[in-house]
Amino acid sequence: MKIVFQGERGAYSELAAKEYFSNSNRFVAVPEFSDVYDAVHDGKAKYGILPIENSLAGSIHQNYDILLKGDAIIVGEIYLKVSHYLIANEGVTSKKIRRVYSHPQAIAQCKNYLTRFKDTEHIPVSNTASAVKKIKKEKMMDAAAIASMQAAIDFNMRVLGRRIEDLDNNQTRFIILGNKPKRLSAKEQDIKTSIVFSLKNIPGALFKALSVFALRDIDLYKIESRPVYGKNFEYLFYLDFAGNIDNDIPEKAINHLREITTFDRILGSYHVGKVVHPIYQKR
Amino acid sequence: MKIVFQGERGAYSELAAKEYFSNSNRFVAVPEFSDVYDAVHDGKAKYGILPIENSLAGSIHQNYDILLKGDAIIVGEIYLKVSHYLIANEGVTSKKIRRVYSHPQAIAQCKNYLTRFKDTEHIPVSNTASAVKKIKKEKMMDAAAIASMQAAIDFNMRVLGRRIEDLDNNQTRFIILGNKPKRLSAKEQDIKTSIVFSLKNIPGALFKALSVFALRDIDLYKIESRPVYGKNFEYLFYLDFAGNIDNDIPEKAINHLREITTFDRILGSYHVGKVVHPIYQKR
Repeated sequence: MKIVFQGERGAYSELAAKEYFSNSNRFVAVPEFSDVYDAVHDGKAKYGILPIENSLAGSIHQNYDILLKGDAIIVGEIYLKVSHYLIANEGVTSKKIRRVYSHPQAIAQCKNYLTRFKDTEHIPVSNTASAVKKIKKEKMMDAAAIASMQAAIDFNMRVLGRRIEDLDNNQTRFIILGNKPKRLSAKEQDIKTSIVFSLKNIPGALFKALSVFALRDIDLYKIESRPVYGKNFEYLFYLDFAGNIDNDIPEKAINHLREITTFDRILGSYHVGKVVHPIYQKR
Repeated sequence: MKIVFQGERGAYSELAAKEYFSNSNRFVAVPEFSDVYDAVHDGKAKYGILPIENSLAGSIHQNYDILLKGDAIIVGEIYLKVSHYLIANEGVTSKKIRRVYSHPQAIAQCKNYLTRFKDTEHIPVSNTASAVKKIKKEKMMDAAAIASMQAAIDFNMRVLGRRIEDLDNNQTRFIILGNKPKRLSAKEQDIKTSIVFSLKNIPGALFKALSVFALRDIDLYKIESRPVYGKNFEYLFYLDFAGNIDNDIPEKAINHLREITTFDRILGSYHVGKVVHPIYQKR
């Protein structure tokens, strides 16, 4: 099967995909997050993987927005423990570093560690593995990248700092995109459903929306609001709740919710994901 | 009075500050958003201004996080209509442009417009006025910046495109930070209170939190969730509601809320802000 992820070889998305799917599949990098969605939606790939939330930095909002592009659905999730490494070209020492390249979230997660490098510029790039690729390609001798150990292995680079993140409970939640629902064998409480909706402009609208779940003892995992594109300060709500949309009570809750929504869509029901540590390997 | 804003001269934050406060004050630029907070908190400035939300792009999350740094409070807000301009050095024509510098949100807001420039790289910088400063300082003849008309005037640059944003209802909400509450003369319904809280891990916690407002017919303006730094997938909720915390019913609602919070803080009560168009001026 072809599985697409955003970024370069060694990106956290690839590590997560390899934990979720068996290693024998074909993992293909694409440049943008929206390319992941499009490849799945257009049938060019069987599955795609997108980071959606980090335990420290919060939601990756652009990927919430991408979920509304077409008909692809969420068929799974996985939580990857993230550890960052400071990576540089051979011959570069910590003292020489004047620039650090990485994804802005990775830079933010290593903020305390980075204070030891005085007069150093932090330069945002679109993903962590690209940062390693860039400093290697341009043979930078005064720069380092923050990325995964896998990126250091893949690009054959020197590791100057290990597990440099400020806090050690750093996890990223990835969602698996597909084209058709999977059959779900787990118990109801081990299944999660993601929906998105916008609400009529009535008093207490959000309170009423949440009541359709609370009144049925349905647990919520997460709620996230995003502005509706092109409408001033109107919001879309992304909500994850416990249960399978194919079952009676969750379905009744959604029908109740529809009494006050102006728009809604079920993004998918899927098994609650496991937390995994990445396994690094020589390729 | 000294009033601090983040960025360069001509930044949208400065335009908003000049609409909120009279022009006779001293407006001082600082490099980072957290410097704005610190200057107010440490008493080095009377007031500070921070962008907190854009009608198209959503919340500026890092500025929500900054609000918890110390004791500074929100004393006001203002909504600035935002129009973007494509700005370049004298002699640069549209055909020559290979790079566009701006804040990522500004780039995102002009996405359709930018499709006309083929093979052009979009380079993120920390604020729009810095983008103009950079292309001027480095005398780039193949680059443009997206910024305010004020930045074009201040840096004496050429305007290649006017109001280039994809949608015309682009507003940014700014909050005014101060050290002590202002006396509020408006009617209760023209006052807004901002609070932040985290909830006990009990079923339906968020539903119960919202009920303290719904049961008292208190309207909510906005709810925003942010991860608690260092705690896995625990959330802080930022909530704006209609009313003055000094009055009886809002105070009762907060006392009720405290029955289920593990942490809460009142960020301030202030007049609901006006929507203003920036006025550009030669300095």
